Amino acid sequence: MLKISEIKQHDGETVEIAGFVKQVRDLKKMQFVILRDVTESVQVTIFKGEEYKKLNETVSSLTLESSVKIKGKVHVDSFVKLNGVELLAEQIEIANLADNNLPIDLTDFNESNRDLRLDWRFLDLRSREHQLIFRVQTTAEMAMREFWIDHGFTEIHSPKLMGNPSESGAELFELNYFGGKAYLAQSPQFYKQMAIAAGFEKVFEIGPVFRANKSFTSRHDTEFTSVDCEFAWIDSYEDVMKFEEEWIAYLIKRVKEKHGDEIKEVLGREIVVPKTPFPRVSMDEAKEIIKSLDYEVPPETKGDLDPTAERLLGKYFKEKAGSDFVFVTEFPTSIRPFYHMYKPSDPSKTLSFDLLWNGLEVTTGAQREHRFPVIVKQGIEKGLIPASAMTDSGEVVIENLPTGLKDYLMCFNYGCPPHGGYGFGLTRMLMNLLGYTNVREVTFIYRGVDRLRP
Amino acid sequence: MLKISEIKQHDGETVEIAGFVKQVRDLKKMQFVILRDVTESVQVTIFKGEEYKKLNETVSSLTLESSVKIKGKVHVDSFVKLNGVELLAEQIEIANLADNNLPIDLTDFNESNRDLRLDWRFLDLRSREHQLIFRVQTTAEMAMREFWIDHGFTEIHSPKLMGNPSESGAELFELNYFGGKAYLAQSPQFYKQMAIAAGFEKVFEIGPVFRANKSFTSRHDTEFTSVDCEFAWIDSYEDVMKFEEEWIAYLIKRVKEKHGDEIKEVLGREIVVPKTPFPRVSMDEAKEIIKSLDYEVPPETKGDLDPTAERLLGKYFKEKAGSDFVFVTEFPTSIRPFYHMYKPSDPSKTLSFDLLWNGLEVTTGAQREHRFPVIVKQGIEKGLIPASAMTDSGEVVIENLPTGLKDYLMCFNYGCPPHGGYGFGLTRMLMNLLGYTNVREVTFIYRGVDRLRP
Repeated sequence: MLKISEIKQHDGETVEIAGFVKQVRDLKKMQFVILRDVTESVQVTIFKGEEYKKLNETVSSLTLESSVKIKGKVHVDSFVKLNGVELLAEQIEIANLADNNLPIDLTDFNESNRDLRLDWRFLDLRSREHQLIFRVQTTAEMAMREFWIDHGFTEIHSPKLMGNPSESGAELFELNYFGGKAYLAQSPQFYKQMAIAAGFEKVFEIGPVFRANKSFTSRHDTEFTSVDCEFAWIDSYEDVMKFEEEWIAYLIKRVKEKHGDEIKEVLGREIVVPKTPFPRVSMDEAKEIIKSLDYEVPPETKGDLDPTAERLLGKYFKEKAGSDFVFVTEFPTSIRPFYHMYKPSDPSKTLSFDLLWNGLEVTTGAQREHRFPVIVKQGIEKGLIPASAMTDSGEVVIENLPTGLKDYLMCFNYGCPPHGGYGFGLTRMLMNLLGYTNVREVTFIYRGVDRLRP
Repeated sequence: MLKISEIKQHDGETVEIAGFVKQVRDLKKMQFVILRDVTESVQVTIFKGEEYKKLNETVSSLTLESSVKIKGKVHVDSFVKLNGVELLAEQIEIANLADNNLPIDLTDFNESNRDLRLDWRFLDLRSREHQLIFRVQTTAEMAMREFWIDHGFTEIHSPKLMGNPSESGAELFELNYFGGKAYLAQSPQFYKQMAIAAGFEKVFEIGPVFRANKSFTSRHDTEFTSVDCEFAWIDSYEDVMKFEEEWIAYLIKRVKEKHGDEIKEVLGREIVVPKTPFPRVSMDEAKEIIKSLDYEVPPETKGDLDPTAERLLGKYFKEKAGSDFVFVTEFPTSIRPFYHMYKPSDPSKTLSFDLLWNGLEVTTGAQREHRFPVIVKQGIEKGLIPASAMTDSGEVVIENLPTGLKDYLMCFNYGCPPHGGYGFGLTRMLMNLLGYTNVREVTFIYRGVDRLRP
């Protein structure tokens, strides 16, 4: 069986294809069926007449979105509007006849019918646009893994069931676990660091994470695919940024090679492989730039950038440096987690960064704090660890470490090497790459506050 | 920085390595440190004397499992027991000094200390045996994906949060979802079929699944990594077996190429790339064979094979056909799910199979039922769908389909093509490949009834 995209190379030959019925036209002397498979659509032409009676009856019985197998002769002809090729049908076999009443219109995709489309996601996904998204996703993920593995990374699958709430305890899903309680992982952060403590040196994971976030925005979901890596023996968070930019450039290069033409044709979008290194700007410098653009970040962000500031910064570096990407570094300690390493010369800043892509934050990364007394001290300062867990002379009192963090913190008491890493949302990558603005379109089966089906 | 496995190629050069301190010996005229990284161990030699005072002091302060960076001159010397190479230290930098009291003995791995080892899994994983397991896992998974992608598969990430209990409702984890209820996916089965209905044609997924199974055996866990694929336009479940055996042979070939020597050295195990096709035997024939071996499958299995029968069958085909693998086909309808396709000439049998590897079941696969009225009828017969969902003349009454199955079943009402697939447990694969008998050893961070930490 051939893919529809392949038949043009078989002019004059009899081939077999299979797919969904996209359109049927019944004319006086001819019947036409537009058939679509995962690659393309093609016009299938059926002559009318006594000798074609069986074929004609089959075509007449076809409903839209039925799946059929068709055998026929390939006829390359520039007069055929659809790709200049048709199939002259010799045999049509209905594999599964679709119900005549389609619940959604497969030619009409917009905001207003999104909820209904998500109800019928398996039909919604049959469009070429949606199919393309997931083929791009496949290529992008494979490219990420190729790059990691070429650099000596080991793949891990960290547990999603946890005995204790991990980081903040906010936005956490709780479940009944044989009469006790368990929690769903919000990120593989602690476990990828545990892998570093376990001597894996370099690890990656692509897997689900869960956030009990009540937001209904176009960017929020309660379950998404997180892309994470972590590696040991770095000298600075600069090593992490250096790795990430090459990794991103590689995956975009692979996507362009494999799907660039189709993305242009279907989505009208040019894939541009970014030049490395990406520009870097410290948070202090970033705020100066934003100020010079006559915008003031509102105080509610507590030292972070707000979406407007991110957009302005993205635009600024696009114009100044021709880059879609910019690393913002040295985020204030006050808005970063306790496990980020603080800047030795100024502990009000962290050795961390965010990556903006087209003015949208896509990554948070950092060098992690790997020194046992230091991370405990930082946890105490953040109020996550009781003060009793440290003596006045700065020694850790292990028995006073909180249960929920103890397994994690103890990793640093037995020679965990210096390390850093970053995390990336798979859907954010797809939205930026392909120009989508709603996470629901680029998620296979979306999960949100009010959506647990299909 | 070099990997320890690479330094032998740099005889006479000054290089830098990093890793964990495995052993320290302080002799009269010399100090020795055995350093281990993700690849290998090496002897680091330090001369004693006034000019080496600082180095000697550093070595004296070293504790086991501390992480250090060492600069030194490579000296290839066949008199050095460990790999015939040593590093003559010039500079030693302690990155993180380990607590002197290690909670487990890293040279002693056995059954009796397993629970303690799992408590300290990050230390347990530092052994070369454990490191090897996860490098083999990385290679195996990558090989699976290479094979799939070469065959036109698309990667999916199906949701793990579900609004309704899926298959049986047994062994299901339930969670609080914004005041309502959600369930954790026990398998991606329904969603991978939904992807087929969505026109993806061929899909794969490697991701976590959750089973609230109360067993404490060496093979049970509550969370594991499931390896799944599904593809459309098959003619028979034979197509599924044919694909799976080539996929398995490919991944074992890749593991052998990349890790065969090390597996032999560390685990004493020879990796054998299987010949394809694997033998096939129908369940009826299998039972004849087992009978001829003077064993009777106990009636409690209700027509299934028990572990003894599987073992005998494995042994039989190893001797008869020289194969570690055997497909057992046409399982009784009574012990297969309602979505397997039944054999047209004998509906008491299914068009399904199990794969035995060394006499252990590793896969269940099947052609799926894709015809809407037929799958509904089979669901009614299994008691999963009320009889009212079908009229006497065999038409589906959509409004009487049960809520929990409706989204799934409706996929078959709109032209879902014929398809089939299989599922595989990642840890089962590793246990068979590397000769482990307890799933806890081959799982990065194990989850069981009484284990939710670390």
